[in-house]
Amino acid sequence: MTFAYFYPMGNLFERPRGTRDFDTISMQKRRFVEERMRKTFESFGYEEVLTPTLENLDLFTAKSGEGVIGEMYAFKDRGGRSLALRPEITTSVVRFYVNELQQKPRPLKLFYFGNCFRYDRPQKARYREFWQAGCELIGADTPEAHAELIALGMTLLKDAGLKQLDLRIGHLKILNRMIAQLGLSEAEKRPLLRLIDKQDLAGLKKECERAGISKAKIERFIEFLNCKELKKIESFIKLDSGDKEDALDAKTELEKVLKYLEYFGIKDWKVDFKIARNLDYYTGLVFEIDAPKLGAEKQLCGGGVYGLAKLFGGKEVPQAGFAIGFDRTVLTLEAERYDFEAKRKTNYYVVPISEELVSHAISVGMRLRNKGEKVVIELSRRKPNRAFEHANTLGARWVIIIGKKEVKKGVVSIKDMLTGEQKEVNQESM
Amino acid sequence: MTFAYFYPMGNLFERPRGTRDFDTISMQKRRFVEERMRKTFESFGYEEVLTPTLENLDLFTAKSGEGVIGEMYAFKDRGGRSLALRPEITTSVVRFYVNELQQKPRPLKLFYFGNCFRYDRPQKARYREFWQAGCELIGADTPEAHAELIALGMTLLKDAGLKQLDLRIGHLKILNRMIAQLGLSEAEKRPLLRLIDKQDLAGLKKECERAGISKAKIERFIEFLNCKELKKIESFIKLDSGDKEDALDAKTELEKVLKYLEYFGIKDWKVDFKIARNLDYYTGLVFEIDAPKLGAEKQLCGGGVYGLAKLFGGKEVPQAGFAIGFDRTVLTLEAERYDFEAKRKTNYYVVPISEELVSHAISVGMRLRNKGEKVVIELSRRKPNRAFEHANTLGARWVIIIGKKEVKKGVVSIKDMLTGEQKEVNQESM
Repeated sequence: MTFAYFYPMGNLFERPRGTRDFDTISMQKRRFVEERMRKTFESFGYEEVLTPTLENLDLFTAKSGEGVIGEMYAFKDRGGRSLALRPEITTSVVRFYVNELQQKPRPLKLFYFGNCFRYDRPQKARYREFWQAGCELIGADTPEAHAELIALGMTLLKDAGLKQLDLRIGHLKILNRMIAQLGLSEAEKRPLLRLIDKQDLAGLKKECERAGISKAKIERFIEFLNCKELKKIESFIKLDSGDKEDALDAKTELEKVLKYLEYFGIKDWKVDFKIARNLDYYTGLVFEIDAPKLGAEKQLCGGGVYGLAKLFGGKEVPQAGFAIGFDRTVLTLEAERYDFEAKRKTNYYVVPISEELVSHAISVGMRLRNKGEKVVIELSRRKPNRAFEHANTLGARWVIIIGKKEVKKGVVSIKDMLTGEQKEVNQESM
Repeated sequence: MTFAYFYPMGNLFERPRGTRDFDTISMQKRRFVEERMRKTFESFGYEEVLTPTLENLDLFTAKSGEGVIGEMYAFKDRGGRSLALRPEITTSVVRFYVNELQQKPRPLKLFYFGNCFRYDRPQKARYREFWQAGCELIGADTPEAHAELIALGMTLLKDAGLKQLDLRIGHLKILNRMIAQLGLSEAEKRPLLRLIDKQDLAGLKKECERAGISKAKIERFIEFLNCKELKKIESFIKLDSGDKEDALDAKTELEKVLKYLEYFGIKDWKVDFKIARNLDYYTGLVFEIDAPKLGAEKQLCGGGVYGLAKLFGGKEVPQAGFAIGFDRTVLTLEAERYDFEAKRKTNYYVVPISEELVSHAISVGMRLRNKGEKVVIELSRRKPNRAFEHANTLGARWVIIIGKKEVKKGVVSIKDMLTGEQKEVNQESM
């Protein structure tokens, strides 16, 4: 029988299910990626905004219907007001825009970084509290504007260090047109969209059969969904003689976007009309970026052209944006074995030999800190031999020993833990 | 009658009471201060951790009693679990420490930065969602450890740019001893502590009279509370012949802390025994830092020596820490008219003269972005004269005009918006 190290466990408090504590190593990685992303957003002329973590519940039900309540942390406060922890940040940014930013020069290029909450079964790479980085482009709808937006999504992930990314681009005006050609009612369309979004084509086929659509039409529709060549799209749309301009305009827009993408440095992409996202919200160009390394939960980024301002009481305005799953980005970097340049915990470790030398150690340590160095001053009165052990634990490069003799001579003894070299240097030069 | 600019207001959605939206200028300031603070924490050898925004409610009631529920956002999730939005972060960090970090080499030096929530009447500089920066020192209790902690609090605020700071330092073992000398029951002590913490000495006097304490004793007690000289403290303690060692040890510790503070570069402080804070939580040295510019809500930082690990099921360990009100820090900087080095919104603004030059503009813009520059590419097809107006709005330093003639010659035309100078430069050198 062995005895593990023991401490009383009777009264442990757990953190809530689906949430995480991040230790110092995780935080170094996360802040590193966050800083990189902030820099990329800014290089594209985007500026940061921040909205409350809590919003009035009606903001989200206005956008997504009452059904969304079950997927959120929603509750009443003591004053009886229905509140929700935000499940995403776009809605809040649009609310902020409508209430306070409509008069600003356009286009507005806003980015955000924050925590969001969902109430569902926790699973790998799906947490109840999770972080999103994202942006909204308000007031520009040229093909170059949309190409820049997609390029920004890709550049953010590449600059963060990711190697393997799959970019897929679709257009809801074309998908909508094709669904319209199936001749279904609104109620019949809904389940189809969900199946398309899940890329479940077998299920889609069954559902179409149940709705009484002809075999030929179904096959043609699935052929369309699998079509990866933009130039073939017209042949699908021409099937019907009705109002088809929207879809053809969309095709022309898409061609231009794809052309400009190359100039933004993005050369790898696929056309994918199976991107349905949320049709209540998105209205035009849509795109998704996946990290194949992540398996089932591989989507890192999703976005497109949408319209929400009017719903929140604002004037109609071109809107587009995307959100990046920040946690998954970090997970993917780890899966790709990205070499996080772990910041050294400390550069210098200053050890006084005895109590009367503590003041001296403080002065030397503060001099180095004021020069911008990371410095640990020994606070537990370790003896020098224990201190050298602790220096290794800290990953300290240099250990400075403050001894009586040295102080009298006006020097300190400094040991390079990498080379093992030890020398005396003038105290003033520290 | 004048008509203001009009947009439909029928359906506006408000943000919850006591919360804020931060615009791009506010966020530049906040991120600037946050970055400065992070750098200072790291220079003192502290490392960042992050805990969930939501915690199980019992974590907070275990620490502060059921009374705290009324001041928090507390609610039940769909699974019937009682949750709360954290009102502060120390409790979560100690929970994390007890559950996962007890075996780490000591001292542990952890810092955090995050949003907290309180449910009370919103007022100036008091919001329902607010931000705290803070730290916990676990496993060191020498005078130099406590002096370093106080020095870190002061250095964080000074490095953030604050000029006027009042540092007050007290000790709960001394205050406790003096209260014990009044001979009150536990129930009688409570209201006194609240009055002391509010620095309401008139109210305190009345309360003492009501408890039947002699006039002479009350006066002596108030004299003690107002005492600013550490060396006089012994005369107060000696009044009683009982167990007084704790208070005298505390005085000796305080002397050493104050001595070391000077070596940490902190020369201005006051001894203040009116700092009561939360006696259930703090146990020894306590300190507060105020910004006199802020008026009534002037406290920026509060902390001290406390014990929580055991309450959460851990082994007893020396603990100390502090929290800084991040919002108030930014407010104070604004009140002190700190010159926030507002980051330029953009350095370069690239304008194609016509549609066929858009690709060219993108290439030039991306070349600059890849060099780390902030670049806005014209996305709304503004004509050059409108573009120059927009450049001023953006605060762009350089406007690059992409014209047909220039592209043929392999150059771009670049205008310095500060000097008005315009010249052609080789496209490749961009």
